[in-house]
Amino acid sequence: MKVKGKEYRTIWIEKSTVFMINQLSLPFRFEIYESKTYLETCDAIKNMIVRGAGAIGAAAGFAMVQAFYEARYKNPKGFLEKARKHIEGTRPTARDLFYAVEKVYQAGIRELPDRKKALEVVEMEARTLAMENEMNAYSMGKIGASLISDGMRILTHCNAGWLGFVNMGSALAPVYFAHWAGKRVHVYVSETRPRGQGARLTAWELHNEGVAHTIVADTATAYLMAKGRIDLVITGADRIAANGDTANKLGTLEKAILAKEYNIPFYIAAPISTIDLECPSGEHIIIEERDEKEVLFQTGLTNDGRMETIRVCSPGSHALNPAFDVTPAKYITGIITEKGIIKAEARAILKLY
Amino acid sequence: MKVKGKEYRTIWIEKSTVFMINQLSLPFRFEIYESKTYLETCDAIKNMIVRGAGAIGAAAGFAMVQAFYEARYKNPKGFLEKARKHIEGTRPTARDLFYAVEKVYQAGIRELPDRKKALEVVEMEARTLAMENEMNAYSMGKIGASLISDGMRILTHCNAGWLGFVNMGSALAPVYFAHWAGKRVHVYVSETRPRGQGARLTAWELHNEGVAHTIVADTATAYLMAKGRIDLVITGADRIAANGDTANKLGTLEKAILAKEYNIPFYIAAPISTIDLECPSGEHIIIEERDEKEVLFQTGLTNDGRMETIRVCSPGSHALNPAFDVTPAKYITGIITEKGIIKAEARAILKLY
Repeated sequence: MKVKGKEYRTIWIEKSTVFMINQLSLPFRFEIYESKTYLETCDAIKNMIVRGAGAIGAAAGFAMVQAFYEARYKNPKGFLEKARKHIEGTRPTARDLFYAVEKVYQAGIRELPDRKKALEVVEMEARTLAMENEMNAYSMGKIGASLISDGMRILTHCNAGWLGFVNMGSALAPVYFAHWAGKRVHVYVSETRPRGQGARLTAWELHNEGVAHTIVADTATAYLMAKGRIDLVITGADRIAANGDTANKLGTLEKAILAKEYNIPFYIAAPISTIDLECPSGEHIIIEERDEKEVLFQTGLTNDGRMETIRVCSPGSHALNPAFDVTPAKYITGIITEKGIIKAEARAILKLY
Repeated sequence: MKVKGKEYRTIWIEKSTVFMINQLSLPFRFEIYESKTYLETCDAIKNMIVRGAGAIGAAAGFAMVQAFYEARYKNPKGFLEKARKHIEGTRPTARDLFYAVEKVYQAGIRELPDRKKALEVVEMEARTLAMENEMNAYSMGKIGASLISDGMRILTHCNAGWLGFVNMGSALAPVYFAHWAGKRVHVYVSETRPRGQGARLTAWELHNEGVAHTIVADTATAYLMAKGRIDLVITGADRIAANGDTANKLGTLEKAILAKEYNIPFYIAAPISTIDLECPSGEHIIIEERDEKEVLFQTGLTNDGRMETIRVCSPGSHALNPAFDVTPAKYITGIITEKGIIKAEARAILKLY
């Protein structure tokens, strides 16, 4: 997507250096973060310099490439196995991360000990995965836009826009397609505490693209629905079980239940790589618990332009900080994939393969 | 309640000066704010130095007393009528505010032009209302504690504790009673964006009283319920319509719907003065929309002990900031009043009178 007239992807690789839009600096500063080693890329994933299911999938694939660059000593397989475990340990919930690491690892390991050949294939594999991520986003956009009619008011949660992917996004891709096609849309952007990906990243994206939008507190969902101000809900996904149960940012589940209560269609948008066929249902999805500090403190921009972190909760109290929740398939109207919109159920999912 | 060994009420009056715990300084500093005039008290209500249905009821009554002190010129009735309108204009949703202003105004106006007598009766009336507010809170606590059994995990939203009343609170009063009776309770405290009354005030109260609790993002409700970690939900109320529909802090409605979905009892705790018999149903309740800045910015404590305000949303984006939502009676298991727990329905409500 374009930022100040220049085309960017969220993340890319040049030789053994990974470049990514620094999502901790956004929305206040637009900066590119450079990661020279696979360990640096792992830290960037963990600290959410790069985040969003698709983007961390690409990041993980690139990190694996970096590990192949670094594996030049006498026991490369041991090193690579360790690197793979380390990358997989950064964030446990996003399916795309495991998918990309596996693909790149297997492609490269077959070529060893020919290091040159291995580097060639892992680079190609990781770039292909990133390219597919982008192509899938375009397909989801085109397909999902069919759900959006002129004048619709759409609620989204967290950020499943182009910053959460290599480009375009999943949940926001249909919004962009509808907007570009001249349909008037209005997006209600759920703040998404504690990290505020809605208020910071989704709002920044929509503002950057000129899409009409309004930020609301996460508590405003039922209020808006009860007032008849939401026509459609679309969110992304971090992992979809074989039966359609979907893990996504904490707060997605309540939006799905509320949408059902108010008879509003609730869609998940995710590429097929997000589906984990080995995971029979939502109960088997591991939910990452993050540091309570993310709830207790907030970072933002002071009046005089400094980034500052402040305590926003009562000192002495503790917080629980699960990053995701699981929405049972029964609350999901459909899943927007790059191959079409399907029902959230095992049979429809299996047909995709 | 006790703070550092000393007994406090949330708000009180001495002559024509109103004293209140400064709820903007909490939880970081415990300070008493002094208001010398009715206009200062109005500003304190508007700016949320004092907040919570019961506490702003008391504040409004005291502001009316201050207006009687100030009405010493040739047209006191005109002045008082203007003052009354001004006080009523501070916050439109809380029923207790209108109730208290009306009571104090009528009591005093009958005694005019005898200023001395009028001052006597308005002081007595306002103090009586504050005292009743406190007594009602104790009754709600005692009655509501019957719903709480040993080991229960209770979710609350916003602050309907003693800071939201003259003392004790509505939603938290049963929790305190249960705790004092030796029942082990654990309170999940919903952060309550944008103002964070849960994370700041409720957490501070519970910490101060030694009640076990955990702060969670507002998005965690369904997650906790789906995991079977909530046994009971209790919130306060700002206005209850004659049919039981209840206006309370934005986000209450979704908690009520989610509680129903997961078969968890959802109670409102509020004194009878919160009921507005002239309001037939929820659609007639006026919902205050507050400044978008409350969403776009956050105030808190820096590492070096300064209060700082930071921007937490993307610059250029706007926010919608409704302060309340209306929970239809059908989602409410019961209303805890000072006269007993009743069903949220017209017949049961009328029986209270």
